Amino acid sequence: MKATHYEGNKTFTVIEKQIVEPAAGEVRIKVAYVGVCGTDVHIYHGMMDKRVNIPVTIGHEMSGVIDAVGADVTNYAVGDKVVVRPLDDRKVKASDKGFNHICEELKFIGIDSEGAMQQYWNVPTFTLHKLKETTDLKLAALIEPLSVATHDVRRSGLKKGETAVVLGGGPIGLLVAMVAKEVGAQVIISEVNPKRIEKAKALGFDAVSPIDVDLVEYVKGKTDNRRADVVFEVAGVQPALDIMCEVAGIRGRIVMVAIHGVKKEVDLFKFFWKELSLIGARVYEKVDYEKSIELITANELPFEDMITDVQPLSNIQQVFENIDNNPDGLKVLMDCQL
Amino acid sequence: MKATHYEGNKTFTVIEKQIVEPAAGEVRIKVAYVGVCGTDVHIYHGMMDKRVNIPVTIGHEMSGVIDAVGADVTNYAVGDKVVVRPLDDRKVKASDKGFNHICEELKFIGIDSEGAMQQYWNVPTFTLHKLKETTDLKLAALIEPLSVATHDVRRSGLKKGETAVVLGGGPIGLLVAMVAKEVGAQVIISEVNPKRIEKAKALGFDAVSPIDVDLVEYVKGKTDNRRADVVFEVAGVQPALDIMCEVAGIRGRIVMVAIHGVKKEVDLFKFFWKELSLIGARVYEKVDYEKSIELITANELPFEDMITDVQPLSNIQQVFENIDNNPDGLKVLMDCQL
Repeated sequence: MKATHYEGNKTFTVIEKQIVEPAAGEVRIKVAYVGVCGTDVHIYHGMMDKRVNIPVTIGHEMSGVIDAVGADVTNYAVGDKVVVRPLDDRKVKASDKGFNHICEELKFIGIDSEGAMQQYWNVPTFTLHKLKETTDLKLAALIEPLSVATHDVRRSGLKKGETAVVLGGGPIGLLVAMVAKEVGAQVIISEVNPKRIEKAKALGFDAVSPIDVDLVEYVKGKTDNRRADVVFEVAGVQPALDIMCEVAGIRGRIVMVAIHGVKKEVDLFKFFWKELSLIGARVYEKVDYEKSIELITANELPFEDMITDVQPLSNIQQVFENIDNNPDGLKVLMDCQL
Repeated sequence: MKATHYEGNKTFTVIEKQIVEPAAGEVRIKVAYVGVCGTDVHIYHGMMDKRVNIPVTIGHEMSGVIDAVGADVTNYAVGDKVVVRPLDDRKVKASDKGFNHICEELKFIGIDSEGAMQQYWNVPTFTLHKLKETTDLKLAALIEPLSVATHDVRRSGLKKGETAVVLGGGPIGLLVAMVAKEVGAQVIISEVNPKRIEKAKALGFDAVSPIDVDLVEYVKGKTDNRRADVVFEVAGVQPALDIMCEVAGIRGRIVMVAIHGVKKEVDLFKFFWKELSLIGARVYEKVDYEKSIELITANELPFEDMITDVQPLSNIQQVFENIDNNPDGLKVLMDCQL
């Protein structure tokens, strides 16, 4: 079978590898599609060379079909369509208070251990979620990033009739916006890239550039001066941190989706003055995957439009180079059987 | 009657003033005690000269007895012991979403309008809370700052059996610690001033200096490595902002009690990684006053020890000068009938 290796130095190789039988408690998945995550691009750029075990097969946004089951596997059978929730929480401790998805010794499958960018992938069954027979396998590769969005929206407590402002209209921002709209909220996307604004509008969203319009006044105009009930900070830049405290109304909830690697300036006075909340959100829980599977299977949101390219797995080097050269693209999938 | 005026330039005067009849919907209170708040000291230092209307009678931590009632006042009678919740929310709007205590056009009585540092004070009845006949009027002057604490603890959702770390052992920090302990939480106070640590210990608290001990390790040792479930940031300094993200455990809630006048650096990565929440808290709601009145009337917490000095109102200039010269003191009251 074909597998891919990240070799360091912005280099992927495609190698020939033995297909192995699944161990007890594991299944072998014939991988259908794997999406490229921002984290994968981060790895490609060498930013995580200290964490990944080079050479390594990465990839964690995937869909596939069970190809073989190991001993003691009772809930899954050959032919089941599945996705993997790539969280290895086997070292959970009492001090993690039951929050397994963010347990102190969490290992992320596809970063800390072998991932999905290969034709066959053996994984323990506790990572699996079964899909419906009708679930589209291409769209199913979006279940992992969509689960980030369903988790973020759940953490926010967003309710029907509220207004959510999404700062950043990239893939995760758009998925958050879709889930927020599905809840019944009014959604406004703030994004600086004109191509992404165009895309957001094409997907049916109210999208504006905070460079062209006064975002706070815009949101006040859309909310009878109430401002945002919920803000999703997905942009990861200082201007977004500044505006999040302005655009949030009284008792507004701000969900921190972006990953800020260094300490940043925050207007804590506004947290005091308006009794704002800042809510950290990381990955997803089982329930978020279940919600995402439901949404993807129903296929009533513009998920198809999120996929801007599908390439054979064997083109992996080109795929990563293209992503670097096309900042306007959204989700790129690789077909793992090609 | 005697009243006091803040005249600017670190100066208070004591003036003679006519006692006036309460207007319709108002009562006249014979003020018993008035406490000096950090905000009053801030005003004395000239830091709020642009906001206060000099010359002005300040003061908002008070207790007293109704001395006369105006027309249309039915729920209050001469002789009732009362405290004032000094929030004028008459300009509340729909966009305030019912959060009157932090409404956009909130006026703070005793800062934005005439306060309690005088012998008689006329106030609208919507500000009043009735005390029990048995409530001690000296302790009752603590109800306003105690309500900040009951509000903070309520905002945190602190539960019995959880661990709360209070960063800062000044008056508000100690009141927060008392309320947190009363909820049934384990409480650890972090404070750098040795005199305040001593005081906190004398009040029965576990209090340590983050300069002498590794606070994170200390808290881990007291929580089976769980760290703090709730952190109250009452110190208002950068090292407290740094340590709050470290000492909080997975899904920890951090309540922002301190007022940070300028933007500060915050470790947002920790908010992501441990799914922390930051909860802004400002003043109090009716229910917080009711809880505080209950606690003060029961008098089972060491409130008496919070009062480190009682002076005649006519000594007001000396009182403020002494506070500047004694950073170890806690709450100073003025007896308004002397």
